[in-house]
Amino acid sequence: ATADKLGVTVRSTDQFPVPQNFLADCDACCVIGGDGTLLGIAADAARGQIPIIGVNRGYLGFLTTLSADEAPRQFQEILAGKFQISHRSLIQCRIDCDDTPLTLTALNDIVIKDERNSQLVRLEVYADDQLVTDYFSDGLIVSTPTGSTAYNLSAGGPLIHPDAAVIAMTPICPHTLSNRSIIFRDDVRLRIRNRDPQARLLVAADGRQNPILCESKPFEITLAPMRLPLVQHADYAHFSVVRKKLNWSGSHGPITE
Amino acid sequence: ATADKLGVTVRSTDQFPVPQNFLADCDACCVIGGDGTLLGIAADAARGQIPIIGVNRGYLGFLTTLSADEAPRQFQEILAGKFQISHRSLIQCRIDCDDTPLTLTALNDIVIKDERNSQLVRLEVYADDQLVTDYFSDGLIVSTPTGSTAYNLSAGGPLIHPDAAVIAMTPICPHTLSNRSIIFRDDVRLRIRNRDPQARLLVAADGRQNPILCESKPFEITLAPMRLPLVQHADYAHFSVVRKKLNWSGSHGPITE
Amino acid sequence: ATADKLGVTVRSTDQFPVPQNFLADCDACCVIGGDGTLLGIAADAARGQIPIIGVNRGYLGFLTTLSADEAPRQFQEILAGKFQISHRSLIQCRIDCDDTPLTLTALNDIVIKDERNSQLVRLEVYADDQLVTDYFSDGLIVSTPTGSTAYNLSAGGPLIHPDAAVIAMTPICPHTLSNRSIIFRDDVRLRIRNRDPQARLLVAADGRQNPILCESKPFEITLAPMRLPLVQHADYAHFSVVRKKLNWSGSHGPITE
Amino acid sequence: ATADKLGVTVRSTDQFPVPQNFLADCDACCVIGGDGTLLGIAADAARGQIPIIGVNRGYLGFLTTLSADEAPRQFQEILAGKFQISHRSLIQCRIDCDDTPLTLTALNDIVIKDERNSQLVRLEVYADDQLVTDYFSDGLIVSTPTGSTAYNLSAGGPLIHPDAAVIAMTPICPHTLSNRSIIFRDDVRLRIRNRDPQARLLVAADGRQNPILCESKPFEITLAPMRLPLVQHADYAHFSVVRKKLNWSGSHGPITE
Repeated sequence: ATADKLGVTVRSTDQFPVPQNFLADCDACCVIGGDGTLLGIAADAARGQIPIIGVNRGYLGFLTTLSADEAPRQFQEILAGKFQISHRSLIQCRIDCDDTPLTLTALNDIVIKDERNSQLVRLEVYADDQLVTDYFSDGLIVSTPTGSTAYNLSAGGPLIHPDAAVIAMTPICPHTLSNRSIIFRDDVRLRIRNRDPQARLLVAADGRQNPILCESKPFEITLAPMRLPLVQHADYAHFSVVRKKLNWSGSHGPITE
Repeated sequence: ATADKLGVTVRSTDQFPVPQNFLADCDACCVIGGDGTLLGIAADAARGQIPIIGVNRGYLGFLTTLSADEAPRQFQEILAGKFQISHRSLIQCRIDCDDTPLTLTALNDIVIKDERNSQLVRLEVYADDQLVTDYFSDGLIVSTPTGSTAYNLSAGGPLIHPDAAVIAMTPICPHTLSNRSIIFRDDVRLRIRNRDPQARLLVAADGRQNPILCESKPFEITLAPMRLPLVQHADYAHFSVVRKKLNWSGSHGPITE
Repeated sequence: ATADKLGVTVRSTDQFPVPQNFLADCDACCVIGGDGTLLGIAADAARGQIPIIGVNRGYLGFLTTLSADEAPRQFQEILAGKFQISHRSLIQCRIDCDDTPLTLTALNDIVIKDERNSQLVRLEVYADDQLVTDYFSDGLIVSTPTGSTAYNLSAGGPLIHPDAAVIAMTPICPHTLSNRSIIFRDDVRLRIRNRDPQARLLVAADGRQNPILCESKPFEITLAPMRLPLVQHADYAHFSVVRKKLNWSGSHGPITE
Repeated sequence: ATADKLGVTVRSTDQFPVPQNFLADCDACCVIGGDGTLLGIAADAARGQIPIIGVNRGYLGFLTTLSADEAPRQFQEILAGKFQISHRSLIQCRIDCDDTPLTLTALNDIVIKDERNSQLVRLEVYADDQLVTDYFSDGLIVSTPTGSTAYNLSAGGPLIHPDAAVIAMTPICPHTLSNRSIIFRDDVRLRIRNRDPQARLLVAADGRQNPILCESKPFEITLAPMRLPLVQHADYAHFSVVRKKLNWSGSHGPITE
């Protein structure tokens, strides 16, 4: 309704995932839902370089541009050009070990676990052909800066500004006292090898799960070749959003801005 | 002695800090001592772009190239060109609030505390003019990737690969449950403001302390314009050093390489 | 063989779990295997107050008395009375929400997750009828002091001396920045309520998993009425074992005793 | 004024610390101020077993019974017997190494640091004559359950219910990746030895600092022989206070009670 009044031609769907080529020729993609919905369309939008405008109807709405309340009024401002675009990096995971090679793309994170619930995985990680370490853990999170406020945060990882050119790796409940996140340059080539011949892995890109059969050949995680154009308020301030949505603070009391 | 035999002209000193212009015209600077000694000459060497060869006689020797044992034999290899140079970023802190403006340079970290022992500081941090948060803490560590294995690590911060183009900020014992390190792009301009009119701050660059008088004007931390050329073994592997020197591991057992 | 020579009457089994009443009338129970094997017999041994002597053939062997190497020689010492008994607390979980009420007993921990892999649970925890908090997490670990070096440790919990009269609760990757373990008196009555009507929970006592059907009625975790008599070296020192087996240290260097 | 109307005989002082024997023959001690003020009188009140009623005029007021707003109305309720008394454990530190032996008592914590600002201490800790570990750190916090929400929390320690019979030990920024808090039985006898002959220590009981001269003889921390009677609302719920005052939560969203 708002879009009609403003003279915007709209193509809409409530299918999820959206039909192939649905975004072709669009100037922007307005996603109504939560972060989960937005994550589902992110790789497609990035491939076509279609800017995403998120309208939050979900839980946290960390990636969304507008709250549901703001949407009608602020949509107009965005059409008037009052916005900025944040070019968010994505990561991809190439898995050649099954019969059909597979490439998964993620805006937040690639998570590796055992296919069976509550089973430990033993993963060996190499960065540019150098051994990083050997994790015996509930799983491993490889995260973009955008994903640093998602699963990475729950597992104890640092907060990363979306513009930082890095990839973060955080183990989930590793069997060690010396647990720390690792921050790599974003041109790193990570190779992850399953060291347990009995285990079948589950690899999830932004929460979408794929079981991985083979155990011998490592799979690879790198930066994706394209970035996602994400529409933001003209006055978007990242840590202000972190403070408000995640109750983050450097002291007990409230922060006066 | 080793140097003589190899036909190297040597200029040496045991003054610390070294006399001004001592490094002028040198091809390399061999530092015999621990990380502390090397940190003391790092800014000078970076300014003159003189590669540093560290020989460890100290505690951890994280930055040193050679152990004391290896030095006689491996020095020769280094002269024969068997080495690589790692260009390490430095940060600098500009303090204009006293009568005489001051610029401090650090290879590891800039640490801000109260001048009095065991007093909390209240610091407001801005990144590129946006408020990050307001820390009520024992102090604040702003660290390079190189410094991530120093004080940043003790305060719970992540391990950062030396090549990652970031600056890390980690509070020391903040009065909050929501304590996390923050990872910024390395072109960030951090401004830190003392919010307690009674407090005089102590700002330390790589552990060298300077008291700061004024309380009103914020001071600024940015990347330094030059990098330090650090000589390393040809087969240097960063996380291998982390595992060996810091006893780091992703599992309880020993790692088989 | 060692036992025969020493005049001990032996009843042995390699069934696991052991047959019912197998331990009846025994003076002690020698468990050959790792911590997992010992955990499997712990509740039975505790009910009959049969002291356990563990011989480690496993990974860490945190609970075992003797290493496989020491066993032949030191068995004799133990029979000669050179040992102490550590009375370890256990916890139990009473689940009345299914048709058949169930009581699970654990020496290490009770862990609650979603029955589906990689699904978040929403659990409300009450301690003696007072709300503690509402966790949105990968799961929840309720641990004895003995279990503090097991899953609790991987999830970031504290090290607890086995004699401390407490129960520890540590969430697994909670969706919050303010993640901390909680230490309760050991006479606390914890009630845990599943807040997601769609979810079926998996409750594991020392890693043995039971699916829980109902979602409405909370289940209860308390101290078990009996303790496990665990045979230890006469000079057993708990933190010495933690240092050696978990590579724990308060500084980087090795500790000289 | 409120007290007069209610027929209570009042003896008041604004001296701090209060004069000796000031509390003699009192039925209760009403402390108006913040947690710091209350900590200052806690040992005296505990020795005389005088219940403390705290009225909060400070920052967090974790220990206080009433907020400043509630005080006039709720004072009457307290006099009418609508309250409960929480008997809080205290710890004490005996220092024999100087010429004059000294005993410090703390309701929250005993903190050991170097007398010089920003200097690392090397402390060896024994529990009941067994080595725990050797800390190379900014300092060491030995905390009661009551103090678990104070400095212990800032240093990453767990939340401990006030009734748990334990003493917690948490290092401040130790030079190690394997940093964890330790939970001991409250009848533990901790001995702490300064391993650096050059260092003079600062020992603070609830923030009140005492320099310690000698370096050779260890000092001892144990439970104090008396407890502090602390007046609380009849419906006091500890974790509700933690949630409200420390913004603690097991999930991002607000908790609905």
